[in-house]
Amino acid sequence: MEQLKERIRKEGKVLPGNIIKVDGFLNHRVDVRLMEDIAAEFAKYFDTKGITMVLTAEASGIALATVCAQKYGVPMVFAKKAKSDNIEGGLYQSEIFSYTYKKKVTQILSKEWLNADDKVLIVDDFMANGEAVRGLCDLVEQAGAELVGIGIAIEKGFQGGGDRLREMGLNYHALAVIENADEHGIVFRD
Amino acid sequence: MEQLKERIRKEGKVLPGNIIKVDGFLNHRVDVRLMEDIAAEFAKYFDTKGITMVLTAEASGIALATVCAQKYGVPMVFAKKAKSDNIEGGLYQSEIFSYTYKKKVTQILSKEWLNADDKVLIVDDFMANGEAVRGLCDLVEQAGAELVGIGIAIEKGFQGGGDRLREMGLNYHALAVIENADEHGIVFRD
Repeated sequence: MEQLKERIRKEGKVLPGNIIKVDGFLNHRVDVRLMEDIAAEFAKYFDTKGITMVLTAEASGIALATVCAQKYGVPMVFAKKAKSDNIEGGLYQSEIFSYTYKKKVTQILSKEWLNADDKVLIVDDFMANGEAVRGLCDLVEQAGAELVGIGIAIEKGFQGGGDRLREMGLNYHALAVIENADEHGIVFRD
Repeated sequence: MEQLKERIRKEGKVLPGNIIKVDGFLNHRVDVRLMEDIAAEFAKYFDTKGITMVLTAEASGIALATVCAQKYGVPMVFAKKAKSDNIEGGLYQSEIFSYTYKKKVTQILSKEWLNADDKVLIVDDFMANGEAVRGLCDLVEQAGAELVGIGIAIEKGFQGGGDRLREMGLNYHALAVIENADEHGIVFRD
């Protein structure tokens, strides 16, 4: 998606440790018009008319997933990080390792809001090692629901998460795959 | 807002400890159409044409704030909970006590995305004791920005957060104020 790559080129910053900062339009300040364009782009790859929900993970995926759900006319559900006492029993749970927080995180999702009849499109703003998405896929499997596809705005290709999903044969698409990011700049995969 | 009260009456559950669970449409599974109606309702109370951004707090406010920002044609910015290493220096910070997590939480916001020229509408899905919103107001003040208003979907009136904001003379509106919630049901403030 050329528009997204152009925003990354112009506004993205590379921090030490291959951290790519795009918080001016994606995951701190959010350009909602761009989210609409991303949602429209996903619709070229996924059967958005055949889904019953958009699923994402707390927190930064919520904005994009909300706009996608709005466009496709379905609810948006987000898996929570555990430890809130606002969710009673009856949970799907998956354990993931958060590189952002440098610790294990438990994703939880109420069984009330995901069941075997659901056809799920997973959406997230960013993929690095793919732990968050792996956890979401696990939740969908626990529910016996159908995974229609996985749409990611920006993939850090050099961290392998996206390639693992491709090897598994999943219907996975990332709109901008970054092959390399260092002090010389950002290079996209063809 | 009668539509919102009706949803709370029909779908809300009261858990021990006066916890009001509305996670089927507001903060776990999100009914995006309802968010659009809430955004339209806020526009009756606030000068949404005069704002430069919608500000909320991670995580559950993001969905509603995104739809509001979309409707008003401005970016959505969310304050993060500290400990992510994806944000470099230059931060506004506010300390709040999270009753959900039973601990102090530091809200952080990059100085890049909020400055003295901004006119800010704060939006959140839920208010109990008001700590999250107090922290957001503090961030706006640190930036020297103008606080245009504070819009909340559901206020737990009996926990005092909303009343404190009213006493301060802030332009605060909640669309459904719950006066009491127990095993006998949910009662709204007139």
